[in-house]
Amino acid sequence: MRAGVIALTEKGFSATGLEEILQSVAVPKGSFYHYFGSKEIFGAELIRSYSEYFARRLDRFLLNTKISPLQRLRDFTAESKAGMKRYSFTRGCLVGNLGQEMGALPENFRRQLTAVFEDWQNRTAACLREAQEQGEIASHVDCDQLASFFWIGWEGAVLRSKLERSVLPLTIFSDGFFQMLRK
Amino acid sequence: MRAGVIALTEKGFSATGLEEILQSVAVPKGSFYHYFGSKEIFGAELIRSYSEYFARRLDRFLLNTKISPLQRLRDFTAESKAGMKRYSFTRGCLVGNLGQEMGALPENFRRQLTAVFEDWQNRTAACLREAQEQGEIASHVDCDQLASFFWIGWEGAVLRSKLERSVLPLTIFSDGFFQMLRK
Repeated sequence: MRAGVIALTEKGFSATGLEEILQSVAVPKGSFYHYFGSKEIFGAELIRSYSEYFARRLDRFLLNTKISPLQRLRDFTAESKAGMKRYSFTRGCLVGNLGQEMGALPENFRRQLTAVFEDWQNRTAACLREAQEQGEIASHVDCDQLASFFWIGWEGAVLRSKLERSVLPLTIFSDGFFQMLRK
Repeated sequence: MRAGVIALTEKGFSATGLEEILQSVAVPKGSFYHYFGSKEIFGAELIRSYSEYFARRLDRFLLNTKISPLQRLRDFTAESKAGMKRYSFTRGCLVGNLGQEMGALPENFRRQLTAVFEDWQNRTAACLREAQEQGEIASHVDCDQLASFFWIGWEGAVLRSKLERSVLPLTIFSDGFFQMLRK
């Protein structure tokens, strides 16, 4: 599973051979098929596992009541930047990678990936509503739309940062996002 | 070339076999290798050809002096939405697709793809500067940063629209973008 997540965050589903994953962890093909049955089932499990890990990670930031709600989201973007740098911009977002590849993926992945983005957006919207209650965001703003805007752009920024091997796209997007919230 | 662009906007580079492209247009392998030499050279040619086509398309909107500069960019986003709908959300952006796949692509593509985004951003920044001169954008805004912000987010929106087979992500991003420009 761990080797699969790494391969999918680095290269995506289509470009990753099952053989190379299994070889990298010395797992025989027979054992793999005993547990997963097919590459598609394995892929669905990887999406599930990654999305749960990521939701926990997001909550660690967004539910941190010691700091202001907007600062929590800021901290998430800062830590994500550091994380991408730590892996020399080789690893992106598993869900974003597979979303981009959807034209070549099993059709079942579509609903699963869409639901993951919705989940992240809902967690983010809840944090933005808290920010709104505390006066950090203007009261007329639709926090669901704003959370959606954030995730649409943030995934675009992860893509560009991976391509350019630079934090600059992440910085430009997050700076622009937080600037537009200033009342 | 045309069959290659379609395959790359739909599925990306890794998931596309040379055989299927050649079969779809009944071109023998020998002829292909006579012209292109390798899949990598073919890929580089497709990026060049797509980016030139796209730059002309972008200019058709951004240099349309009959309407206000911001309206030109708005028209581009509206027409792009219609275009994605026309192809049932199967076709995305060739440059965005390949950017996302970079971990599995020939390293030479990186500079080429980065340069394409820079080119589109420069054309967009020029239009935004015109908008600024005409008072459509506040004078303190950095138009280069703003053009970069637009393309980072717009590519994210194309990705999500393709995944969800809906114009909604494109609408949420473009509406949010133009709203944030209101002084």
